[in-house]
Formats: sequence, structure tokens, C-alpha cells
Amino acid sequence: MARITGVDVLDIRFPTSRELDGSDAMNPDPDYSAAYVVLRTDGDVDGHGLAFTIGRGNDVQAAAIQALAPHVLGREVPRDAAALGALSRELVGDSQLRWLGPEKGVVHMAIGAVVNAAWDLAARLANRPLWMFMAEMSPEELVSVVDFRYLSDAITPDEALALLEAAEPGRAERMSVLLAEGYPAYTTSPGWLGYSDEKLAGLARQAVADGFDMIKLKVGGDLDDDVRRMRLARAAVGDGVRIAVDANQRWDVADAVRWMKELAEFDPYWIEEPTSPDDVLGHLAIAQAVRPIRVATGEHVQNRVVFKQLLASGAIDVLQLDAARVGGVNENIAILLLAAKFGVPVCPHAGGVGLCELVQHLAMFDFVAVSGTWENRVIEWVDHLHEHFVTPATVHNGRYTTPTAPGFSAEIHPASLHRFAYPSGPEWSTS
Amino acid sequence: MARITGVDVLDIRFPTSRELDGSDAMNPDPDYSAAYVVLRTDGDVDGHGLAFTIGRGNDVQAAAIQALAPHVLGREVPRDAAALGALSRELVGDSQLRWLGPEKGVVHMAIGAVVNAAWDLAARLANRPLWMFMAEMSPEELVSVVDFRYLSDAITPDEALALLEAAEPGRAERMSVLLAEGYPAYTTSPGWLGYSDEKLAGLARQAVADGFDMIKLKVGGDLDDDVRRMRLARAAVGDGVRIAVDANQRWDVADAVRWMKELAEFDPYWIEEPTSPDDVLGHLAIAQAVRPIRVATGEHVQNRVVFKQLLASGAIDVLQLDAARVGGVNENIAILLLAAKFGVPVCPHAGGVGLCELVQHLAMFDFVAVSGTWENRVIEWVDHLHEHFVTPATVHNGRYTTPTAPGFSAEIHPASLHRFAYPSGPEWSTS
Repeated sequence: MARITGVDVLDIRFPTSRELDGSDAMNPDPDYSAAYVVLRTDGDVDGHGLAFTIGRGNDVQAAAIQALAPHVLGREVPRDAAALGALSRELVGDSQLRWLGPEKGVVHMAIGAVVNAAWDLAARLANRPLWMFMAEMSPEELVSVVDFRYLSDAITPDEALALLEAAEPGRAERMSVLLAEGYPAYTTSPGWLGYSDEKLAGLARQAVADGFDMIKLKVGGDLDDDVRRMRLARAAVGDGVRIAVDANQRWDVADAVRWMKELAEFDPYWIEEPTSPDDVLGHLAIAQAVRPIRVATGEHVQNRVVFKQLLASGAIDVLQLDAARVGGVNENIAILLLAAKFGVPVCPHAGGVGLCELVQHLAMFDFVAVSGTWENRVIEWVDHLHEHFVTPATVHNGRYTTPTAPGFSAEIHPASLHRFAYPSGPEWSTS
Repeated sequence: MARITGVDVLDIRFPTSRELDGSDAMNPDPDYSAAYVVLRTDGDVDGHGLAFTIGRGNDVQAAAIQALAPHVLGREVPRDAAALGALSRELVGDSQLRWLGPEKGVVHMAIGAVVNAAWDLAARLANRPLWMFMAEMSPEELVSVVDFRYLSDAITPDEALALLEAAEPGRAERMSVLLAEGYPAYTTSPGWLGYSDEKLAGLARQAVADGFDMIKLKVGGDLDDDVRRMRLARAAVGDGVRIAVDANQRWDVADAVRWMKELAEFDPYWIEEPTSPDDVLGHLAIAQAVRPIRVATGEHVQNRVVFKQLLASGAIDVLQLDAARVGGVNENIAILLLAAKFGVPVCPHAGGVGLCELVQHLAMFDFVAVSGTWENRVIEWVDHLHEHFVTPATVHNGRYTTPTAPGFSAEIHPASLHRFAYPSGPEWSTS
């Protein structure tokens, strides 16, 4: 009976601010970072997880993961839904740590990192990529890992079970399709605010040449700039390609409505993070004012309770699942079930460090076992930092390649962990 | 020109779980704790602040405060609205730390601790208790310290200014009244879940004898127990005394409604934290179902954006301001302005470590300069741990004594800081 014998927590930072990759209206100079956790065992297999941050504070995030270690050390290696449900419940239920959230911010992201590492471990032990490990669980097992607290006015365990059972007959066929075809992607690479017009137009054309039928631009800094950039992008890609725009929470409600009226002539596919991720009623007001433009959010939505409200009120048309913001796989299953219940497509947030690697599994699980479709669904793709991962996500001809290696794809190469360790690694100590 | 020359951050924990003081349906065994910060200066006066936690994770909270030190070290000592507004904006606006919230959880509470310490410092330099320092600022100065981002659909700076100007003529008279009469209090001391029926009834009678006309009971663990305890309490205090009940987020929406229907015969004054503090629409549903019982929340409401929604939607009838949850005095001024705009009384949360000391200033400022009234307003009082404070809050005959010592009352005695330092202090290292 293998046990977890160690919890390694590492502060890893990549100096992305030097190139303005990742610059947007609220995040001008991110250093993409990971508070990285390894669950060491006395067996052959370890579990890897991470919380994504953008630089300063990654040490605080790492400290929060370390604070969870007593719940994990000595624990039997999790192999099944029962163990993975119990771990999540114990972490979320820590009656003292809970005060620091509850279920939000640094502590909740730390829980997500540890829970995701545990799922990675379990999937590796089962010799399955995570999406397949999840998609082979029974509806009862999947329901058992979800915390339905605060959800029962929107979805009950029985409703969740019925949703999963309804999708069960098609699972095997969809697994085959997924393995053969991959999953639809879109790319944000052309649209960072720090890029010149020329770079934007060139990258937009390249995206279409690379097989993408959807791109995304960052907006929200200056309206005239955004109109010019959106016009350029539309001219570059033509009418058949979807262009989403992303304000990264820059606006108040009235700003969002005014801005989108100006951008409407260029047919934006969605407006992402128009305002505070905490503002359910603000998103609802924006959605009602800017239709048929879709409203999307999620990368900063703290937990299932806020998603419940965004969905039940009709405030969002697209749910942007994030693998490293909420309390890990368990809570993301809850969120996928809520989205399915309300008929809202899930288009995950990715980019950063390892988010593409992680979230592909959740979208593919959704396709196989929950929503049963990829219609109107697409995973974000940002092509940087993948070289640091042992089993990197890859995109070809506008589609994610379905991962087949065991686990959750979060493992970073030891050489990268050494080089980008903060502040002691050579990348930081010699610069 | 004095400058901030040091930022001391201390992990202070009191072993309150040994006595079951503070036990409720979600927090069975809290060790009331403070991540305590001192802004050292090269002048004669320092600034003191704290983030309140309930034990584990206080080290993470302290690490988050430490992460803010670069924004504070070397800064000119803040003396006025301009400096206090600039500090708050710089801390909230850190483009990398922001990712860890945004504006919620550990990082936001850390900002609150530092901002509150800066207001403490400024008030001491002005030789004023904080409430008076604030109440002597002009409406323009007060508006200038507030971040209106995400608020403009509910309140604009001009509206805020008009509210403050309308209250200006009565300020001097209300200051006199406040100094003469103190501010109304209620007591939670009888109602912790860990207490026996006898202790509950005895403490409830004692509360009335001590001059309180309102008490509060913790509920939410077991309905039969709660009915019995509520009946006991009502019998003990009679009909003229208000009894609030507090579920500490234990319920889903339907649970809250069912429970309150059962407790209604004992005339509960408000139901506090019936469900997740993140669930605006859940609170609204509960409020509509349980009226005329009031719905109250706030101690875990993460920021002004959630308060905005709770107020604008009519989801709460009582706003429970907390001094150490949001981003400090600046954001609490925003919240007081929102409450005044929507006509909802503010009844602050207190207890824990230092919360009575801190929040009394905000309620008194509200009385003098914002709402201009204490009708239907009352500050929570929990009578423990005050002996550790240099200028402790005191209550006599059911009213807070108006503080007159300079500052924000957050300073803890050096002997207590030594004894309860975690894990090295004698209280912890020898037990």
C-alpha cells in the first residue's frame, strides 16, 4: 500500500515580462510563474500539480500549498473516486484555513494545485491520460467526488447523475473520435496589447494559415486603438474567421457597453472579462446590452458558487473553465455539470504556464462524458513555455492533439525547474 | 520628512480552541489569530494593523503582508487623504499580485492590514482617534480615497460627494453626542454552539442585566437543537430583547428557508450568513422567502463589488461591515457610501482578535459623517482577548465607549506579542 511521503513545493518564474508576451489591459508586465507541487510517494510514481500566477506573490502561493502538506503527508496514494473525493473534502473543509477564503484566492488555488496533483498521480497509476481516467469513471463515481454544497438550488446530485447517464452511451465512440481528430483550438498569440500593428496583422494571417478559424485580441486600454486593431485583424483574417476580444476586467458596466457598441461592426465573437469577475449582475447587464455578442468569463471566477449564479441568471454565454483557479478537478467537474445543466458551452482559458497542458484534459472529459459535444466549444491556445513540459500540449491545424501519456500533463522538466527557480535559479540569480 | 523605515510582520495566535469560545457551525475549533503588522518610521510614531484569521494559515497571511513591504518601505509617512489614497491604489493595483485575488482572499486581507496600519499612523500623527480623523476630512477628501472602479453602475463619485455633503452640517453635533453616549452594541457571548443550555441561558440573562437589548445565537448545526436553544434564549431574555441568529454559511438556500420558518415563532431579528457569502442571488432568494426576518451578511464578503450587488439587488437588509476582510479603511468608506445610497443599516461584525477595537471607529465615522444616524444600527461585541490591546474597546451598559486615544486601537501589548508568537512564543513552545 503506497503512501505519499513528501510534498515538494517550488517557486518557478519565467521572465516573460522582458518580451511583453502576455501583456493586456490589466496585466502589463507578467512574469508567468508556477507554484509547483510534487506529491512524492514510496512507489514508482509521483503526482505533479501547479498554481499559476504572474510573478510577485508566487512565494505566497507556494506557502499556501505548503500549509496543506499535513493533510497529504502519510496519506495512502489516491487511486479512485473515493480517495480523490475524500482528499478534496478534507482540504476544502479545513475549518481554520477556510477563514482565509472561504473557497477563493490563494488558499483555494493551493487546494486546486494539490488536488490536481493527486488526480495526476491516480491517472498515472491507472496508466491513463487524465481525460480518459475521468471518462472511464461511472456516473456515480463522478457525482461522488463533487461537493454540492451551495449548489442545490441549481443542480442536485440526482440531476447531475441523470446528465452523466444520458451521456454514457456515446462515450466509447466519442473517445475514438477524439483520439482521431483532436479538439478544436483558437489562438490568442496575435492579440497581446504590447504588439505592434504589423506584428498583430502578421500573426493573425499566420494563425489562419496555421489552420485556426478563431483568434482573440486583447482590448480595453484605449478605444481608438482597439477599433484600429480590430479593423486590422478583421482585414487580415477575412469574414470567415471568428475574432474574440478580451478586456481582462478593465471596464465598468457602462464602459463595456459603450466599447462593444463601437467594436460591433467588426463582428466580435465574444467579449471576455468585460468587468470584475465578481460582478454577476454586472455581467448580466452587459450581456443584455450587447447581444448578439456573447459574454464570456471564467479565468478569475473563484469557485462554483459564482459560476452557478453566472449561469442561472443568464449572465454569460460562454464559460471559460480554468484548471488552476478553483479547487481542482473535483470542483471543475461541478462546474462542467452546471454548464451542461444550463446549456452553456465551455471554452477553457489557457496560456500562462501549463494551463494548456492541464485544461485540455477537462475539455476532452467534457466532450466524452458530460456535454457530449464540441459544438461551439474551443480551447484557448497560446504557444509559449510548452518546451518546459515533459508531455507538452500540441496543436496542429487548429486542433489540440489528444494526449495519450498517463497523467495530467503538468510535469515540468527538472532542468527547467532548476533554471527558473526563484530567486536562486541561474535565470534569476545571474541576471 | 519622516519615512517608513521598517515593516514588522508577526504571526500571533491565541489558543481559543481550548475553551470552545468562538465555536459555530462552520468553525468548530478556532484559534483566534492575527497576522500583525507594524509600520516602523524614523519619527516617534509607528502604525499598527492586523489581518484576523482563526489559526492555521496565519503564516500564509503573514507572508502575504510581507510581500507588500516593497510598496511601503522608504515611503513618506502618510498624513492625509492624498497619501492614504495613493497607498491604497498602489497596493490594490500591483499588476502581478492582483492575479492572486483579484481583490479577495489572503492578498486582499494583507492589503487591508497594511492600509489600516497606515491610517493608524496618520491618525496618531494628527493626535486623533481614527473615527474623528476620518470625520474631520472634507467630503472631497473622503471621496478621493475611494476606488470607484466597478461601482459606477451603483454609485458615482458625484453621488458619494452629495451624500457626504448632506451629512456635513450635523457632524459637530453628532460628535458631541457620540462622545457623551457611546454607540449601541449587541453581544454574541451567550450563543456559541459549544456552550451548554445552562451556560447559554445564564449568559443571556446576564447580557440583559448588563444593559444589552440585543443578543445573538449561533445556529445551523442541528434544527432541533436550534429550536430548543432559541426557545431557551427567548424565555431567558423576554420579548423586549432582540435575538439575532447566525448560521455561519452552513446552509444551502432551501435549508435556510426551512430553518428560519421553524425559528420564526421566536421572532429572530436577523439571520446572519445563511449561505455562501459569494451567493448574491442565493441571499436574495432567502430574503424574499423569510421576510420579515432580516438577512444579514458581510464578515466574509470579499470586497465592494459583492457588497454592491447584495445592496443593489435587495439581497440583504443589514450590512455587516468587517474591518479586516476587505482592502482597509479606503474600501470600507466605499462600502459605507454604498450602504447609505441604498438605505441599508450597517451593523459591523466584530469579535475575533481586535475586530471590536477596529470596527468601532468605522461605525462611529458612519454615524458622524455618512449615514448620520444610529437608528437600527448596532456593533457586535464579544468580550474576549481585549486585555491584549493597549487601548482596548470597552462596552458599558450595552454601548461601546467612544475611543479618544489617537489611532485605530489595533496596537497589541509587546508582552502579548511575545507570549503568543507562533510557534516560538512561550504559550505555544511550552504547551
